[in-house]
Amino acid sequence: MAGTDRRQAVVGGGPAIILVEPQLGENIGTAARAMANCGLDDLRLVRPRDGWPSERAVAAASGADWVLEKARLFPDIRAAIGDLVHVYATTARDRFQVKREVTPRRAAEEMLGYLGADEPCGVLFGPERTGLVNDDVALADTVLTVPLNPAFSSLNLAQAVLLVGYEWFTARTAPADERMHRGHSRPANKAELIRFFEHFEEALVDSGFLRDPKKRPSLFRNLRNLFQRADCTEQELRTLHGVVTSFMGPKKRREPEPSADLVHDETVRR
Amino acid sequence: MAGTDRRQAVVGGGPAIILVEPQLGENIGTAARAMANCGLDDLRLVRPRDGWPSERAVAAASGADWVLEKARLFPDIRAAIGDLVHVYATTARDRFQVKREVTPRRAAEEMLGYLGADEPCGVLFGPERTGLVNDDVALADTVLTVPLNPAFSSLNLAQAVLLVGYEWFTARTAPADERMHRGHSRPANKAELIRFFEHFEEALVDSGFLRDPKKRPSLFRNLRNLFQRADCTEQELRTLHGVVTSFMGPKKRREPEPSADLVHDETVRR
Repeated sequence: MAGTDRRQAVVGGGPAIILVEPQLGENIGTAARAMANCGLDDLRLVRPRDGWPSERAVAAASGADWVLEKARLFPDIRAAIGDLVHVYATTARDRFQVKREVTPRRAAEEMLGYLGADEPCGVLFGPERTGLVNDDVALADTVLTVPLNPAFSSLNLAQAVLLVGYEWFTARTAPADERMHRGHSRPANKAELIRFFEHFEEALVDSGFLRDPKKRPSLFRNLRNLFQRADCTEQELRTLHGVVTSFMGPKKRREPEPSADLVHDETVRR
Repeated sequence: MAGTDRRQAVVGGGPAIILVEPQLGENIGTAARAMANCGLDDLRLVRPRDGWPSERAVAAASGADWVLEKARLFPDIRAAIGDLVHVYATTARDRFQVKREVTPRRAAEEMLGYLGADEPCGVLFGPERTGLVNDDVALADTVLTVPLNPAFSSLNLAQAVLLVGYEWFTARTAPADERMHRGHSRPANKAELIRFFEHFEEALVDSGFLRDPKKRPSLFRNLRNLFQRADCTEQELRTLHGVVTSFMGPKKRREPEPSADLVHDETVRR
């Protein structure tokens, strides 16, 4: 369907599109083209396999050059989502995590509300062959799944970006009918949330919880999902840091970081 | 987004997808794949430039073979749409014809009604480079235009089919916009939640957090709200109990559950 009218202003803004370890430059290019179709221009790349910049991406973008030129490269997902308040993880399979799952349509309506309230948001897309790993999904608030034929639901990367972007473009022409009230505090961003996760998990290990380290990744993922769902404010995260610090005991709070050996010593803790 | 479950029945039926003079076999294949994604299987080809059948189409269809096998070849549009009652023509440019124009969403709702009344319908897609000619458009009842960035609205054939098919699939299955995944656990009830609150708060007081008792009610209320929003499962609450117990130290964990009377007695608890 040819119909581009270059006299008309390009629509900008909208959610970030975060491609996690995309494999082929072509797919980055076609994803950028789909973004341009939908008025999106915040492309973030986490460790693209074949390097960056990519001539193949430019060739495949069919003129969506401004999206590729603005694209930013990140060493990991944490860095790529640090400034965002709301993150969606696209998946096609059930990950058995306790998490909200929404359609692209609902996600678009939600994101319209978030962006109207100056709360940056973005959507994670995994590598072409495998999709996002479970630990990546646990960094998102919400799972985004495209409703498709269950017997044949595999989409290529650009098509997944297109469907999410299409719903975004369609929704932005209509006003949002819901937004979140947060009293006097602002929503925490992902960098703040991840700092809390790390403090909490380190304290848990120190306290002797789950002595079998093999069980930790799945337990930590479950706990991260629980706190993701709570949609914490920045003030609440400060309270939670205080809770963890208090649990670690008064001695620890006054001292510099104790060594791991001392943590299980009753005389130190009491 | 990989997520195909071949055990699930393929959704069939739906409007015909009519490709008018498609140029490349690849594009027929990717269009067939997009149809399979959306539960469509009535593919009609009008004078494909590179002949039919096409090995390139099969390779590009990524397993949507049944759509290609069922595809029918027609010498012209009249023959291809003869049995249909309602026909949509996809265009991106204004053709200056006096005609209804609808979005894919509206078209999907309409087609759902038509097919429910046994009135066959279909959607025309033009050749990749040029789109439908005006005489083809004049054979359709209605123009179908995808709302996209006016400065960059060019879609490839498979993507145009995907967006039309996605709206069809969404309309016919009316998926819930949102659902909650809870893995294998059930949602906690309020009695379980309140037991956790009490365990947590008691442990917080013991740990020395907030020595000023006047500040406690408001802090505890805030923490309760946070965990309420997380919408915990019963399994997660058990994990959280374990977390609190672990933070309270190994000595306590070895003791049998103290009776309610003894809970505030330091000598019993330590």
